[in-house]
Amino acid sequence: MPSRYLSFRCSVPWLLLSLQTLFFIYVFFHFPDGANIYSPSNFYPEFQDVNHMVIFGFGFFLMVLRRYGFSSTGLNFLLIVLGVQCSVLVEDLLLFFFLSCSLAKAVVSTTAVAISTGAVLGKANPVQLIVMSLVELVFFYASRCINRRFLQVPDHLTLMHVHLFGAYFGVAVTSRFPEPPPGLDKNRSTPKSELFSMLGTVFVWVFWPSFNSILADSKKEAVLNTYFALAVSAVAAFMLSALTSKDGKFRMTHIHSAVLAGGVTISYTAHSIQHPWIAMILGLLGSVITILGSHCLQRCFNPAFKLQDTSGVHFTFGLPAVLGAVAAVVLCVIEKGISTQWNNLSSLGYLVFVDVGAFCQTISTALITGLITGLILNIKLLKTVHVSKYFDDQFYWEVSF
Amino acid sequence: MPSRYLSFRCSVPWLLLSLQTLFFIYVFFHFPDGANIYSPSNFYPEFQDVNHMVIFGFGFFLMVLRRYGFSSTGLNFLLIVLGVQCSVLVEDLLLFFFLSCSLAKAVVSTTAVAISTGAVLGKANPVQLIVMSLVELVFFYASRCINRRFLQVPDHLTLMHVHLFGAYFGVAVTSRFPEPPPGLDKNRSTPKSELFSMLGTVFVWVFWPSFNSILADSKKEAVLNTYFALAVSAVAAFMLSALTSKDGKFRMTHIHSAVLAGGVTISYTAHSIQHPWIAMILGLLGSVITILGSHCLQRCFNPAFKLQDTSGVHFTFGLPAVLGAVAAVVLCVIEKGISTQWNNLSSLGYLVFVDVGAFCQTISTALITGLITGLILNIKLLKTVHVSKYFDDQFYWEVSF
Amino acid sequence: MPSRYLSFRCSVPWLLLSLQTLFFIYVFFHFPDGANIYSPSNFYPEFQDVNHMVIFGFGFFLMVLRRYGFSSTGLNFLLIVLGVQCSVLVEDLLLFFFLSCSLAKAVVSTTAVAISTGAVLGKANPVQLIVMSLVELVFFYASRCINRRFLQVPDHLTLMHVHLFGAYFGVAVTSRFPEPPPGLDKNRSTPKSELFSMLGTVFVWVFWPSFNSILADSKKEAVLNTYFALAVSAVAAFMLSALTSKDGKFRMTHIHSAVLAGGVTISYTAHSIQHPWIAMILGLLGSVITILGSHCLQRCFNPAFKLQDTSGVHFTFGLPAVLGAVAAVVLCVIEKGISTQWNNLSSLGYLVFVDVGAFCQTISTALITGLITGLILNIKLLKTVHVSKYFDDQFYWEVSF
Repeated sequence: MPSRYLSFRCSVPWLLLSLQTLFFIYVFFHFPDGANIYSPSNFYPEFQDVNHMVIFGFGFFLMVLRRYGFSSTGLNFLLIVLGVQCSVLVEDLLLFFFLSCSLAKAVVSTTAVAISTGAVLGKANPVQLIVMSLVELVFFYASRCINRRFLQVPDHLTLMHVHLFGAYFGVAVTSRFPEPPPGLDKNRSTPKSELFSMLGTVFVWVFWPSFNSILADSKKEAVLNTYFALAVSAVAAFMLSALTSKDGKFRMTHIHSAVLAGGVTISYTAHSIQHPWIAMILGLLGSVITILGSHCLQRCFNPAFKLQDTSGVHFTFGLPAVLGAVAAVVLCVIEKGISTQWNNLSSLGYLVFVDVGAFCQTISTALITGLITGLILNIKLLKTVHVSKYFDDQFYWEVSF
Repeated sequence: MPSRYLSFRCSVPWLLLSLQTLFFIYVFFHFPDGANIYSPSNFYPEFQDVNHMVIFGFGFFLMVLRRYGFSSTGLNFLLIVLGVQCSVLVEDLLLFFFLSCSLAKAVVSTTAVAISTGAVLGKANPVQLIVMSLVELVFFYASRCINRRFLQVPDHLTLMHVHLFGAYFGVAVTSRFPEPPPGLDKNRSTPKSELFSMLGTVFVWVFWPSFNSILADSKKEAVLNTYFALAVSAVAAFMLSALTSKDGKFRMTHIHSAVLAGGVTISYTAHSIQHPWIAMILGLLGSVITILGSHCLQRCFNPAFKLQDTSGVHFTFGLPAVLGAVAAVVLCVIEKGISTQWNNLSSLGYLVFVDVGAFCQTISTALITGLITGLILNIKLLKTVHVSKYFDDQFYWEVSF
Repeated sequence: MPSRYLSFRCSVPWLLLSLQTLFFIYVFFHFPDGANIYSPSNFYPEFQDVNHMVIFGFGFFLMVLRRYGFSSTGLNFLLIVLGVQCSVLVEDLLLFFFLSCSLAKAVVSTTAVAISTGAVLGKANPVQLIVMSLVELVFFYASRCINRRFLQVPDHLTLMHVHLFGAYFGVAVTSRFPEPPPGLDKNRSTPKSELFSMLGTVFVWVFWPSFNSILADSKKEAVLNTYFALAVSAVAAFMLSALTSKDGKFRMTHIHSAVLAGGVTISYTAHSIQHPWIAMILGLLGSVITILGSHCLQRCFNPAFKLQDTSGVHFTFGLPAVLGAVAAVVLCVIEKGISTQWNNLSSLGYLVFVDVGAFCQTISTALITGLITGLILNIKLLKTVHVSKYFDDQFYWEVSF
């Protein structure tokens, strides 16, 4: 019944062509001598690591669904390479808003797209995903600019809001998609798909110190703290998985989410923490909030809001990022408080106000723009996929068995 | 029926042993204080990347056939480690022909073997593959020497002819192998094998900037241009795949080939392009020629010449390399022309003559020596495999189900 | 029958929690300004490589059993991250025994755990594995201290005993576990599991030069010699596999073990060998001893001692490490002998005595402590797994089909 299938021949290629033409024109006119700015300069190995992590790691990390392997890796790949070009363009346009730009930052920014993709995995078609990723990157840069300009957040920290933004944007978008019927078999995983997902998870885990240190001034501290936080959160993931699941067995989805929690939680503070035990506590708390969150959200929150977060980005990236942002404020206040001997409380209050403002602004921007994007994505023009066609490669790929 | 199987016990081990002894004797007598020359010195990370790309990336990239996974990765591994030693030997013998040598160059050279292996994948037995790779490396070095000595091509550019040489050598060799019967099932892929192949493709893609920059003088430009070309060719791969396939679906084989096209196309010019938009155009054209080529070659060219190019190296590496070589000539002429204000046309003509000569020489050497090698490989002595035993691991590996 | 299953809810989480609390308390009190010591400093890329090799490479290298994929990668991951923390603690406590400490060394040390895990793969439950890895690390550090203090072995060489210790400790531990019934199907491999294992093997192979050079003074020589040894042992692996197996076919388990043998054999001498041909010979001998060992051990030794070494760590890591240790003594004696023109035989004798003593001490410590650990692991308290539940993920993981 090929006539019943949605054909993307008239939409995907032309959308990609027009975007690519746009980037090309931009580079042609605005990029004549900018090569120096964009080059990875002397941090090529770290750039390589982050690139590998985002394209390979996230691509396979997302491969949890039994019949959605091609789309998980393939479309993630497409969205990242498109997103990097889009980031370079947007970043360059926003240069006068105090943001400096580089290819490395562009790759880091597109992590938001990879995360949001996880939330709508299997439900959005390629056209919707492309539109979503472009809109998301524009809004993420807008949010960064607000943080940078009005709230004086340092440049590289605005970029670390990427997990927070990606997760809540994704959750908001996915809430506008119809829920799949409860008895659906295709949105479950198989041992094989979970092994591939484990493969991707290990890659993301191993390269996370590079991710957190690529833009930090004090790389050594960033690497060390991130490593400790990741190690503790990996141990805690196994601990909590055995504790919360039936018969004390490990659950693979817990491991996938919670081993990464430490990296997300520490991302705001990796460069500034002086004592490794603080990093370890943050890693532990990140893992706890992820595993508790996965139980609470899947049982209470998601059914209540009728949203389905396919690969659980809300508890994998969203909750640890919130925890990390709160921890960053607390640590900053304590440090400043101690150094001023708690005399200058009004300046501390202002600090808290600004820092809390920054992350509230990021979350609310992500939620609002995500909701709007979700509504836009579900208009007829973008060929929304029927619920019965969710989670299936063969509507987008030529699959031969 | 074990008696019907070909036994390689009397050929493969002794062939490997004699080669290894040869290399050993060579190293023993000629390598006493040469350690400095061969060492990867301060570009160890890039050497690591290229090594990883050639052994892991190409090994899994070639894993497209449903019952040929062990041979794809295993034999590729064997051929690369053998090829690297052979390259070191050949390179050292040819030192007086103006070629300097290093372990990094040896690894880059063996890419030619990996590419040619793709053309005869599943059709050649291990003995044939080993002989082919040795003969190929010798001829590739001979071709490089001609380019270096008589056509004054810079050393690191002679090495970038590796894709061109590998692809056309492979095509010529495979044309001398009998065609498999049309209804054969074993030369098709499965979703699982295509996922593994995607895994390898992503590795090759991610490490390509290291490959193109390892020998370049201006590493920064080489990395940047290669990244842009790869990004554009990845986007174009998805665009053209949806445009040319039935129902506008993506085809995995298109993606595998075309995402890499940008890296091949830009390989001659990555270090010298001043404007990223040129790199982007080259990436786009590389992708276009790969996808159009895959349709034309598989429908017209291959049936006409009765050749079967198993993993499509002709359009994956051959055509983009030709395009890249032509583009290199054009860019060089334009640059020289502008700098001399088009006054010195005879010197420009000489330049074109030399550059076109270099790549024509490479292609024709590859084709002629490939044909001869293909004829040699099909003599009885080398235990040619019957067509019914093509594409099957269990003739070379102990497979337990 | 969930009631028949062993539940680890009351053991694994609390064990992990108490260990993590211990590490945390230690770091809290003893680590206030030690950040400088532990940081990876300027060898971050190598640290990254080794980390990747141990967590990803060994995790997938161990994935040989058909129904044990989750445990192979997942539990290896857990043991490594736990082991790294434990190493940091133990190393710090032993600082006054002449050992300097760093995160890189901690990761290298945990290789012993990954190797020993291979010996008891599928037979030990998570509690047993965790206890085993902690006990092993403590004993490994004790053995290193003896080597360092009483036998004057240089610090980075004591660490290279990690393969020797890991393999013999694992063999001794596995000898205390009951043998699986002979007709068991679950301890065989499938082509799919062997492909994943190949994937891990290639990773370990590619990153081995980083492993051997991370602590060496003369990194260049270490990388070069390791690469040559690995290349030769890979070629020899294919040669010997075809020679020793039925019909001259390659056997995947031979390849997995023997391609790595060169890296193990050269580990003691990689930094000091002056002539690449010595490295090549060592790689060849390593491969020979591995493949011959795999036949002898599996037919004679293992049945005689009623031990089952699941992934063959005895011949993969144990025998090549013994060879490497002997070769190190021989090379050292020859070098010293030549430089003193064989005049000072008594000092040579002392040298031999000390060097042989160092590796005999390592092996005997490994065997004795391994036997004791094996006895301890099989007490009732640690919930030994019944033989019928060996080699099966579903007793430790929630597996959905």
